[in-house]
Amino acid sequence: MNKIALFPGSFDPFTIGHESIVKKAIPLFDEIIIAIGYNTSKKGFFPVENRKKMIETIFKEEPKVKVEIYSELTVEYCKKVKAQYILRGLRTATDFEYERAIAQMNRFMKSEVETIFLLTESEHTPISSTIVREIMKFKGDVSNFISKSVNAYDYL
Amino acid sequence: MNKIALFPGSFDPFTIGHESIVKKAIPLFDEIIIAIGYNTSKKGFFPVENRKKMIETIFKEEPKVKVEIYSELTVEYCKKVKAQYILRGLRTATDFEYERAIAQMNRFMKSEVETIFLLTESEHTPISSTIVREIMKFKGDVSNFISKSVNAYDYL
Amino acid sequence: MNKIALFPGSFDPFTIGHESIVKKAIPLFDEIIIAIGYNTSKKGFFPVENRKKMIETIFKEEPKVKVEIYSELTVEYCKKVKAQYILRGLRTATDFEYERAIAQMNRFMKSEVETIFLLTESEHTPISSTIVREIMKFKGDVSNFISKSVNAYDYL
Amino acid sequence: MNKIALFPGSFDPFTIGHESIVKKAIPLFDEIIIAIGYNTSKKGFFPVENRKKMIETIFKEEPKVKVEIYSELTVEYCKKVKAQYILRGLRTATDFEYERAIAQMNRFMKSEVETIFLLTESEHTPISSTIVREIMKFKGDVSNFISKSVNAYDYL
Amino acid sequence: MNKIALFPGSFDPFTIGHESIVKKAIPLFDEIIIAIGYNTSKKGFFPVENRKKMIETIFKEEPKVKVEIYSELTVEYCKKVKAQYILRGLRTATDFEYERAIAQMNRFMKSEVETIFLLTESEHTPISSTIVREIMKFKGDVSNFISKSVNAYDYL
Amino acid sequence: MNKIALFPGSFDPFTIGHESIVKKAIPLFDEIIIAIGYNTSKKGFFPVENRKKMIETIFKEEPKVKVEIYSELTVEYCKKVKAQYILRGLRTATDFEYERAIAQMNRFMKSEVETIFLLTESEHTPISSTIVREIMKFKGDVSNFISKSVNAYDYL
Repeated sequence: MNKIALFPGSFDPFTIGHESIVKKAIPLFDEIIIAIGYNTSKKGFFPVENRKKMIETIFKEEPKVKVEIYSELTVEYCKKVKAQYILRGLRTATDFEYERAIAQMNRFMKSEVETIFLLTESEHTPISSTIVREIMKFKGDVSNFISKSVNAYDYL
Repeated sequence: MNKIALFPGSFDPFTIGHESIVKKAIPLFDEIIIAIGYNTSKKGFFPVENRKKMIETIFKEEPKVKVEIYSELTVEYCKKVKAQYILRGLRTATDFEYERAIAQMNRFMKSEVETIFLLTESEHTPISSTIVREIMKFKGDVSNFISKSVNAYDYL
Repeated sequence: MNKIALFPGSFDPFTIGHESIVKKAIPLFDEIIIAIGYNTSKKGFFPVENRKKMIETIFKEEPKVKVEIYSELTVEYCKKVKAQYILRGLRTATDFEYERAIAQMNRFMKSEVETIFLLTESEHTPISSTIVREIMKFKGDVSNFISKSVNAYDYL
Repeated sequence: MNKIALFPGSFDPFTIGHESIVKKAIPLFDEIIIAIGYNTSKKGFFPVENRKKMIETIFKEEPKVKVEIYSELTVEYCKKVKAQYILRGLRTATDFEYERAIAQMNRFMKSEVETIFLLTESEHTPISSTIVREIMKFKGDVSNFISKSVNAYDYL
Repeated sequence: MNKIALFPGSFDPFTIGHESIVKKAIPLFDEIIIAIGYNTSKKGFFPVENRKKMIETIFKEEPKVKVEIYSELTVEYCKKVKAQYILRGLRTATDFEYERAIAQMNRFMKSEVETIFLLTESEHTPISSTIVREIMKFKGDVSNFISKSVNAYDYL
Repeated sequence: MNKIALFPGSFDPFTIGHESIVKKAIPLFDEIIIAIGYNTSKKGFFPVENRKKMIETIFKEEPKVKVEIYSELTVEYCKKVKAQYILRGLRTATDFEYERAIAQMNRFMKSEVETIFLLTESEHTPISSTIVREIMKFKGDVSNFISKSVNAYDYL
């Protein structure tokens, strides 16, 4: 059976921290679906279609990686796409507590999905989408926080 | 003197984690007031009157438990209802830091009220009102997170 | 039925932080047993009999408080002395994680004992027996960290 | 070269915790700029001009302290005012994780600015602007949380 | 290329928490080596050979799982046995901080080994080898914390 | 008045994380005393005289930095050497809680000494003396964790 992992997030935007997690996970799985959670009531900073395009550009050479937009419960979406694993990156202890709550709730609701955590590189620990957006609001330089293959400002 | 404890929260909705804390506390006190904090500017997910009805249904066999709605400072409300104790459940270390700040501020403002913490059962640790609401927005099944005696969807 | 709480610890030595937790708990219980855990293989800094004498002196006016030495599992000792509650003070988030593990293990082993947590006063947060011992090794002044009614150096 | 520190925040309002951090830092620096971050899309509770007046009143006897309003990236503002240091207070472990992320991002963007952390007094640990605002919404007494030299209600 | 994961620990003793992590990981890897770190200067509670026998008994039906004793740096041992992954379970935020330091140091020293974290089941969170040993010192019942297929006391 | 900072620790051994903290602090102070706490009952891994020599070699070009060995309470030693500041590096949230307790106890005992915290570089976060010693016990390569100007094995 194919091993399929879902990497869910809002990816508003997708940072080099996210990219590094996906790259580390590629050898472990047959397919990785980067799943952009979309909520019609919260628009976000980047249009959701542009987030998808940006991530597709970053992974255009990587056949195992797909990018999708979803707007249902994550565990429901896993069932639909037949993902047995949820992939998450961990940066800090606060992250961990939040991720643990989500992962344990997912188990309550559909025990067959297992969450796999990979550790963010120590030099990527401070990078978060929130801080990248904050810098972009002031037109600052975010090129160190986003894949070299794209220019974040092109996707606004 | 009667020992009266206030169990304050927004309870939007009241989960089996909350229920378990109240049940553990019943032998310690003569009266437990479940006090739903209400803020006219933040409507919440469940109407506040329905939250009250749902909790009353859950504890209808328990004469020591009362349910009230309040919209003043918690320490002020304690004075009004003569509660000497505030009861709180603890799930995670992040919870703890938040609860400590609140409890220490309450001491600054009215030193006679003491906060008593009980620990959430380990299997209830991941359950939070936030996650329950999230699941309900997608019409998911929340029956494992809410008292068996009520159907959360009836109170929306 | 009498409400009996066990306040277990090594109390090497008993600080004003410990004292404040016991004083806050007195109105909630009919009896509080301060139980000094003793392990023949770890001698400790203060002789265990002196720790007991020091705590008895501190609470000599308080008929609800008893002081005992025990060397069995805490939950077993609770059964023997018919304590339905374990009382613990919380200072920091690290404390909390440790206390949660202990309390949840106790539940696994004897579900009738419930752990009640009280919060250390914010000005007592930094005080720990470890730091008091460290200061005493250098003959420093610890009078601000120990009950005014005793002189810690008399119990060494 | 003059040692200039920036103390950035929203200071909505400036509490005795903030005041104590600035006072401790005065001997270390030649100039401390208390910089009120202002975001036109988030109005805040106190008008930003009044926050500035309140802080100026508190430090009117202290020639090393200046108060400014800014609305750019903090590291950009440091360059403009020639601050080599950012000053921050730490209260809790959650604070710490947040501050670490901000400080490490600042390093990424302009490595010459160093963040200096001072510790909040243990009795000030529970005080936060959020809780002060919460009390003021209910017309509560906040005089213990704000400098004795001002009346917070005068600046609303 | 075979995917080989090392699950290192002192396993003194191996608990149902450890067992659950290994079982969840089996579908992800071709081989899992449970590697008991052994340090001649710290004897431990269970003889190291008995720890090995106990774990082998637990996994005797599972051909993908091997059990080994090692006494070198974990990253060196990974090279020797050609493990590309280190597997670790996470229980609490304190665990996480410790595991992150270890994993990041391993990266410094041999960047090809990646650490994969799985989450302990919420009901196993409080179980640790330390607490199991503590109970066994008092001859307590540990059958709820150890695989049903073995009796921990037989391996002392 | 000269601004003197004490940087206390066991420095067993002094890592590039420690070195980076001292270098960042040099512009802030007139003198920095790296003070190696020595306890006759705990020998440590490196002989204390060799730790001193190693640190002196690292800072031999830096006239503001002195290295001393002390074996009294840190606050007492501050008085003796007229240090008004204690300098500490922060790596993780667990570090922070420990450092806060120490710093607040120091305030209790001698309020004039203020603790200044600097943040470890994100790439140095996982480096600790404990892990360096662990690697050295296995004769591993620690050159990435120790100043380029010294060879740690020469100081054993």
